[in-house]
Amino acid sequence: MKKNGVRELWSNGKGVVNSWLAIPNSFSAEIVASLGFDSVTVDMQHGMVDFQRAVEMLQAISIFDATPLVRVPWNDPALIMKSLDAGSYGIICPMINSKDECHQFVSACRYAPRGMRSFGPARARIYAGDDYAQNANDCIITFAMIETAKAVDNLGDILSVEELDAVYIGPSDLSLTMGHAPSINPVDEVNDAISHILQECKKTNIKAGMHCPNGKTVKERIEMGFDFCTIANDAAFITQTGSSELAQARGQ
Amino acid sequence: MKKNGVRELWSNGKGVVNSWLAIPNSFSAEIVASLGFDSVTVDMQHGMVDFQRAVEMLQAISIFDATPLVRVPWNDPALIMKSLDAGSYGIICPMINSKDECHQFVSACRYAPRGMRSFGPARARIYAGDDYAQNANDCIITFAMIETAKAVDNLGDILSVEELDAVYIGPSDLSLTMGHAPSINPVDEVNDAISHILQECKKTNIKAGMHCPNGKTVKERIEMGFDFCTIANDAAFITQTGSSELAQARGQ
Amino acid sequence: MKKNGVRELWSNGKGVVNSWLAIPNSFSAEIVASLGFDSVTVDMQHGMVDFQRAVEMLQAISIFDATPLVRVPWNDPALIMKSLDAGSYGIICPMINSKDECHQFVSACRYAPRGMRSFGPARARIYAGDDYAQNANDCIITFAMIETAKAVDNLGDILSVEELDAVYIGPSDLSLTMGHAPSINPVDEVNDAISHILQECKKTNIKAGMHCPNGKTVKERIEMGFDFCTIANDAAFITQTGSSELAQARGQ
Amino acid sequence: MKKNGVRELWSNGKGVVNSWLAIPNSFSAEIVASLGFDSVTVDMQHGMVDFQRAVEMLQAISIFDATPLVRVPWNDPALIMKSLDAGSYGIICPMINSKDECHQFVSACRYAPRGMRSFGPARARIYAGDDYAQNANDCIITFAMIETAKAVDNLGDILSVEELDAVYIGPSDLSLTMGHAPSINPVDEVNDAISHILQECKKTNIKAGMHCPNGKTVKERIEMGFDFCTIANDAAFITQTGSSELAQARGQ
Amino acid sequence: MKKNGVRELWSNGKGVVNSWLAIPNSFSAEIVASLGFDSVTVDMQHGMVDFQRAVEMLQAISIFDATPLVRVPWNDPALIMKSLDAGSYGIICPMINSKDECHQFVSACRYAPRGMRSFGPARARIYAGDDYAQNANDCIITFAMIETAKAVDNLGDILSVEELDAVYIGPSDLSLTMGHAPSINPVDEVNDAISHILQECKKTNIKAGMHCPNGKTVKERIEMGFDFCTIANDAAFITQTGSSELAQARGQ
Amino acid sequence: MKKNGVRELWSNGKGVVNSWLAIPNSFSAEIVASLGFDSVTVDMQHGMVDFQRAVEMLQAISIFDATPLVRVPWNDPALIMKSLDAGSYGIICPMINSKDECHQFVSACRYAPRGMRSFGPARARIYAGDDYAQNANDCIITFAMIETAKAVDNLGDILSVEELDAVYIGPSDLSLTMGHAPSINPVDEVNDAISHILQECKKTNIKAGMHCPNGKTVKERIEMGFDFCTIANDAAFITQTGSSELAQARGQ
Repeated sequence: MKKNGVRELWSNGKGVVNSWLAIPNSFSAEIVASLGFDSVTVDMQHGMVDFQRAVEMLQAISIFDATPLVRVPWNDPALIMKSLDAGSYGIICPMINSKDECHQFVSACRYAPRGMRSFGPARARIYAGDDYAQNANDCIITFAMIETAKAVDNLGDILSVEELDAVYIGPSDLSLTMGHAPSINPVDEVNDAISHILQECKKTNIKAGMHCPNGKTVKERIEMGFDFCTIANDAAFITQTGSSELAQARGQ
Repeated sequence: MKKNGVRELWSNGKGVVNSWLAIPNSFSAEIVASLGFDSVTVDMQHGMVDFQRAVEMLQAISIFDATPLVRVPWNDPALIMKSLDAGSYGIICPMINSKDECHQFVSACRYAPRGMRSFGPARARIYAGDDYAQNANDCIITFAMIETAKAVDNLGDILSVEELDAVYIGPSDLSLTMGHAPSINPVDEVNDAISHILQECKKTNIKAGMHCPNGKTVKERIEMGFDFCTIANDAAFITQTGSSELAQARGQ
Repeated sequence: MKKNGVRELWSNGKGVVNSWLAIPNSFSAEIVASLGFDSVTVDMQHGMVDFQRAVEMLQAISIFDATPLVRVPWNDPALIMKSLDAGSYGIICPMINSKDECHQFVSACRYAPRGMRSFGPARARIYAGDDYAQNANDCIITFAMIETAKAVDNLGDILSVEELDAVYIGPSDLSLTMGHAPSINPVDEVNDAISHILQECKKTNIKAGMHCPNGKTVKERIEMGFDFCTIANDAAFITQTGSSELAQARGQ
Repeated sequence: MKKNGVRELWSNGKGVVNSWLAIPNSFSAEIVASLGFDSVTVDMQHGMVDFQRAVEMLQAISIFDATPLVRVPWNDPALIMKSLDAGSYGIICPMINSKDECHQFVSACRYAPRGMRSFGPARARIYAGDDYAQNANDCIITFAMIETAKAVDNLGDILSVEELDAVYIGPSDLSLTMGHAPSINPVDEVNDAISHILQECKKTNIKAGMHCPNGKTVKERIEMGFDFCTIANDAAFITQTGSSELAQARGQ
Repeated sequence: MKKNGVRELWSNGKGVVNSWLAIPNSFSAEIVASLGFDSVTVDMQHGMVDFQRAVEMLQAISIFDATPLVRVPWNDPALIMKSLDAGSYGIICPMINSKDECHQFVSACRYAPRGMRSFGPARARIYAGDDYAQNANDCIITFAMIETAKAVDNLGDILSVEELDAVYIGPSDLSLTMGHAPSINPVDEVNDAISHILQECKKTNIKAGMHCPNGKTVKERIEMGFDFCTIANDAAFITQTGSSELAQARGQ
Repeated sequence: MKKNGVRELWSNGKGVVNSWLAIPNSFSAEIVASLGFDSVTVDMQHGMVDFQRAVEMLQAISIFDATPLVRVPWNDPALIMKSLDAGSYGIICPMINSKDECHQFVSACRYAPRGMRSFGPARARIYAGDDYAQNANDCIITFAMIETAKAVDNLGDILSVEELDAVYIGPSDLSLTMGHAPSINPVDEVNDAISHILQECKKTNIKAGMHCPNGKTVKERIEMGFDFCTIANDAAFITQTGSSELAQARGQ
């Protein structure tokens, strides 16, 4: 089975630099995947992306070495399993607030006896190889999003769930549920919660991931000990260069 | 009929800052259109865009004030007319190398007796208003691409074609056909040809447009007298921010 | 933030005339939106519409002043939140039969602390403006469909749910669950239930909406006190004119 | 091979009532095809329809008895042949203004030795049957659009082209090229030209078709002797019912 | 209402030969449907197929006599009802492990008072006829997938659910949950469980279906008493001929 | 620049086994590309494939080592250039019947000074590498289809065109234009013409390709000296296995 590049980097002690796709198109996906990111995540939650386009985007990512990942829109076994069958090597699941929710999530990512994933890896077998069935349970990465005050309260329970590989912090929702404006650059109280989550992950040998606004923050978070950090998304890339070049054209 | 924003700016003596779409998707089109460009061009030639997606992209552009334009893949009346019926307010036609080619092109953009455009403005009438039929001939902008050595040789003849509103210089093809490597930052000989084209346009009261690599060049070209300048394209925006943020994340 | 036209009309004491899209296409959506309806609803339940096309249809609606709404296929937080992120200004949720179901529904439409909506308004922010985060909770309209006998039994409980703005009556399902043939022109017993729902809405200051077969019925229902009435759908428009013109062509 | 219903009606002396699709969607196509029209035409010229969607629309039409036809965007052998391979039983070709243009058009619709159509009826064979190759030349209907003053001048020559089965009059373009406003309800001078075309068709045993605004006109034109008449299109059906019902809802 | 071909064959004591679509395309769907299978199932679980494409595929299947069926991705009322509204004449629902799950599933397939299906058969009424509402409850076939050890334990309870018409055995998942490698050619212990399921179905007058690797196995299973057997899927058809012809080309 | 696998095999004296895609879908494309063919051709002529889907299919092919090729629908510079910009490493152009037609075709495949291809390799550069501009002229393969009696008559002239790399024989059209039924298993007279073409290619150092019905014929043709042979297409693969397995299931 084709190796999971994210696991490879982790086993070498490296932090993973991830990218994020909100534009539902395989050409923009291919452009991002060609830039050298360690992994590329198709965002089916807040991205404008549905399953049919996600399949095409996963194909485009597969042309390159970047590891293909999917953020599903909800803790729903149907789309989790479909995304895995389409060749995703990991699932980032939003709004995991309790041990039960976490257990349901990871269970959808693992074949029996380690979970309840249904068998039929249509595209995954083409991407990964004929020994997919034997190795998928050890290859696929499970990321539970920790992004609410409640999840922070239940953190110990959540992190204790077997088959959980990693957490992924959503700073906007975490800010919001802690009583602040949603922001990808969190205020101190939220940053303290983020540090707490990182420490608990380190204790329990769970990998820690986080959404970041830019490359500079990614570098800082990885130096803090984070294992997996995302730089904004494709839509933000367009906006950032587009706006600044337009301003220059107008002499602003 | 809804006014053509590009003509409005021209009649106020302003240079137009144009953007360019190679990604075949209506969400990325909407993002670009929202940034404040004066016009947005769907590139059906070198962009990965076919007519069906072009229609959706023209819809997305129509949400904003930016003027919707199309670069057609070739001097082919079928796609020129379909693009106009879909609501494009101007056509940029590649590889116009002679008076005859120019005449055929502009003829496809005008209803009789000024041309041979077939009547049936399906989406255009919805976008522009019920008086589209009466006003389209005066509203739609015709851009002939001057991008070969041969076109430069025939420039006077081309510029003399009635119903031609503007030229659009493609520096890569112009470089190539003048014996240089294709480049959006042309060498001196090519730059001299570009200046020559600009001067001839000024003499004949034809507007002059050009593809530019970035906002700084757009500003310079407009200061030189260009009337319509494009900043790279959406794909380049992704690559530029994506690459530089990734490099920062890696401390490179 | 761009105002919600439906709320504007309501605050002026006006009844809203809504249209309904079952055809999964952005061009037919644009045609309907151009006709002057106060709002246009993308029907993801019984319409042949999935999320990807819904995004394109919401873009087409956004070209006009009509307020964009979505009927989701089920009381499922994933699609409710995705529809809002795609720029819908209201959600019509089918089959709300109890207070708990209603609470779950409205909670998915509101950011903390008023609900559990996850933050990431990808297209919504482009459509509505940069202050979307601060204002969305007050802008987005929540419509609970009252369309079963059970829902009528639980009406008081349902209407008492905070963050519920409106109900939307589905006469076909209401007929069916009250023991009658499904019909958009309900029998007396069902009409009595509908009047009862309207009265309860008036008492509790909840807006009342309803699906109607044609313009005449919409006028009558609004005169009865309804605040939001839909005229059939796009598919019915095609069938109605198509059938009657065909009959005339054949002299029938 | 499945019979061509239009030819069947013609051989029974009946006038064909045709419908017209401008919305690029297979569900709206299926709705129209279900209403009982004799034939359904996918409009790839002024409709917002490209080849990929046309294939899906032809599939939807094939569920019913209506004969599937295509109007191509231009006299271009590539799209004519692709449309036939996709299962169209006739081609309506715009802007046939001379004998040469007509010859080129019909030649693209016939296999050697009667024409130059390339062999590969991918979907057509599935729709029509395994004996498609032997019978296609006699089954497929060729419609040359007569829609310019020049075409009227060259009418005798055009009608003399072997393999031409029918003409199709486009009243808007005919009006425009005769110096009038484009209209589907032509002025007297244009109506005289239309009568002249009809008479010449009768003399030369070429079938005569025409685009009409509504069922009443279709009935009149068929009574005049026309063999094939179209009622507006799907977009007009939506607009007609949508507008009138909306006006009723508003008491206008 | 158009008859359900599968029920017709069953009432004549015949075993149904079913085909299975994993490729999300209406042309490949049409090819398979044209081959003469009794029914064609769109696989929305492990196939790479989402709702929008499923609608187009159901249209393509409707051209032929084969009965259109859908396997939904999960026991989710939203997609079950949407698939029925799109014209599916039966639903195969994965992972039915208990009486409650079975009851929830079949309830989503039946209108009140026999279930909770919401009314709005958009495309189904076009495909089936205007009397769809009256007859759908007796026409639509409910298949519960029995594919886990737990389901076998609860078999009696599951089979006792009113409105359940049939079971469908998934041998790969059944193997996996019984502690074996997933395989469409099950080991003896799993085969014994399959025989047990068949016997229980016979006792309770529930039809028995099963996924098979090829035509030979289908023949054997039907001779054993199975009522509905599937031959692999479209993707496997491509692989089988493609691989063997390629090997011959290379002289392997 | 990524090497052209077909040229690599040719320089090693090997015959290329090619596959052919008529189904407009990236998943079926990926399945075929994964089977080990040397090259995969997207058929935009008789396949049901338009440009937008062709791009997605080229992406899917790019995941594997197979060389991506496109058959364009006609000798039209627009689609030839778009296909190359989308990453095709060769163009098969139908109906090349004269030296002029051949010259026009190859000219569209080469940048100046060797041709008139316009510069803008949007996806090609991502697939091939940043040195695409310098190397494309030597990498891209031009295949002129020899498939009419007229082309055989003009063979010497056609083969003398500089920049022509290969011919591709279409046996069905060749049969048809020589007065026989169209067949992929040609009669003797046509086979003689095919042998003649092969000999002329050998003399002029032009590679010879041909469409074949199956692997056995490919082996024979390559042993005859052909350099590039195609095995039927994806649609035929489905039909072949589907039909034979269905017959077995029915005991036929």
